[in-house]
Amino acid sequence: MQNVAIVGVGLIGGSFGLALRRAGFGGRIVGVSSPKTIRTAIERGAVDEGADLARAVAGADLVFLSSPISVIVDQLGAVDENARPGTLITDAGSTKAAICQKAQEKVRRAAFLGGHPMAGKERSGIAAADADLFQGRVWAVCPNDENVLREARVGEFLEWVRAIGARIEALSPADHDQAVAFTSHLPQLLSTALAACLRDADKAPELAGPALLDMTRLASSPYAIWKDILSTNDPAIRVAMKSFLRHFFELTRDFEGPDTENVFQIAQDSAAQVRSVLSI
Amino acid sequence: MQNVAIVGVGLIGGSFGLALRRAGFGGRIVGVSSPKTIRTAIERGAVDEGADLARAVAGADLVFLSSPISVIVDQLGAVDENARPGTLITDAGSTKAAICQKAQEKVRRAAFLGGHPMAGKERSGIAAADADLFQGRVWAVCPNDENVLREARVGEFLEWVRAIGARIEALSPADHDQAVAFTSHLPQLLSTALAACLRDADKAPELAGPALLDMTRLASSPYAIWKDILSTNDPAIRVAMKSFLRHFFELTRDFEGPDTENVFQIAQDSAAQVRSVLSI
Repeated sequence: MQNVAIVGVGLIGGSFGLALRRAGFGGRIVGVSSPKTIRTAIERGAVDEGADLARAVAGADLVFLSSPISVIVDQLGAVDENARPGTLITDAGSTKAAICQKAQEKVRRAAFLGGHPMAGKERSGIAAADADLFQGRVWAVCPNDENVLREARVGEFLEWVRAIGARIEALSPADHDQAVAFTSHLPQLLSTALAACLRDADKAPELAGPALLDMTRLASSPYAIWKDILSTNDPAIRVAMKSFLRHFFELTRDFEGPDTENVFQIAQDSAAQVRSVLSI
Repeated sequence: MQNVAIVGVGLIGGSFGLALRRAGFGGRIVGVSSPKTIRTAIERGAVDEGADLARAVAGADLVFLSSPISVIVDQLGAVDENARPGTLITDAGSTKAAICQKAQEKVRRAAFLGGHPMAGKERSGIAAADADLFQGRVWAVCPNDENVLREARVGEFLEWVRAIGARIEALSPADHDQAVAFTSHLPQLLSTALAACLRDADKAPELAGPALLDMTRLASSPYAIWKDILSTNDPAIRVAMKSFLRHFFELTRDFEGPDTENVFQIAQDSAAQVRSVLSI
């Protein structure tokens, strides 16, 4: 892996470039983004140069697609047409079924491996990019066909993912999308609805404490970055919502009854398990 | 204010003693707790000595009740019977209507001012006490009669609250309880129900990211510390739950429709407002 094309040099794409460099990647990194973003990305050392999509992809051993989901879906055809047969195309989209299905139709010349680095920040864009962004985070990889994981180019890419500090979890696109509906999309919707309903509460901002800060942090995310995620994962999110509401109603039916205590206990165990997996 | 009795020397009571000392309080601090807790509290400098309730209260200018809500409610009669007429009784209970109503019945000799320092930690007990716990936090005070706020002993107490770094918000017990139903109790219930429903999700712990950590932090709290809070604030919590569900259903009805975008926008503004009030 000597030549990398990063298509969409924002928080994730820019951080990937910075992290590769810091992990010792000595090859060339070409970015595809607006001229202004490319200028900043070059200044920050995230990419070596900018190019248009066709030229960037034509020279690449690895193409890293880190645009919004709908843009990735639209780009896959053109990316494959311009890629060399030995190229590996991967992506960083937050839902995987829509992208992986499109890749199955469109990626013929290159190989494709869906990916989702589970890292983020409240701020977006190349200015917020950070070589440490993936450190200790999960990087989900979702092959359409598990045989792709045995290819040498995929092995080499995954070595770099480990080198930048991420922990690889391989699972199917459908399993991924159902899991992140619970671990990411449902939490976002709860935080957004909680922050919105504070409008109904007199004196709420005055009586805010650390609990409310934790629970409304995600609510600062704009619809612009959630539209694609929500609309490409609707059925899985409905499953997670239904499960949440069932537990919420069980928890709140009678605060002095045994169900409330039981749900608290399950939640404590579950919160501890999440923390033990992330070694916190 | 020369003599302070802290009844219940746990995280809040112990932190109050430590914070007073660091702010320069030179009087005597007597703690009411188990012998083991008192030993630790003396070692840590949170109290000077232990005593039983009657003796501690008899000598006190300020009585600070920092036991669980149901214990405070039970103690108010005995505290007043043992207090001198010049004594101020205050408390740190997380709901105010039940305690303030009981104080109105039982506190005859001393004066009473309901209080709620909006600070906390995941760990409880004297070992977790911290002189910085109230720094930058809201300290709600809930008088049964606003005239009490003009008394000299209350003024002196509030000066110490400011000296330990807290920001005072005065409001009625009912307004307090409705506000914290939104800012504290509803967030707790959402976090607990979210953590509990992860049991329905295969692969959820493996795909946990920072968003899930934020949103399940509160779920580590045990039912033991929430039972009293929930059962003394049931109607106000139902109001907050109803508001939350209305916004949640509006947000999730159609992810590509205008309602979803609108609720995201309201939530962003609201999250920003909470942060601006807390100067974060």
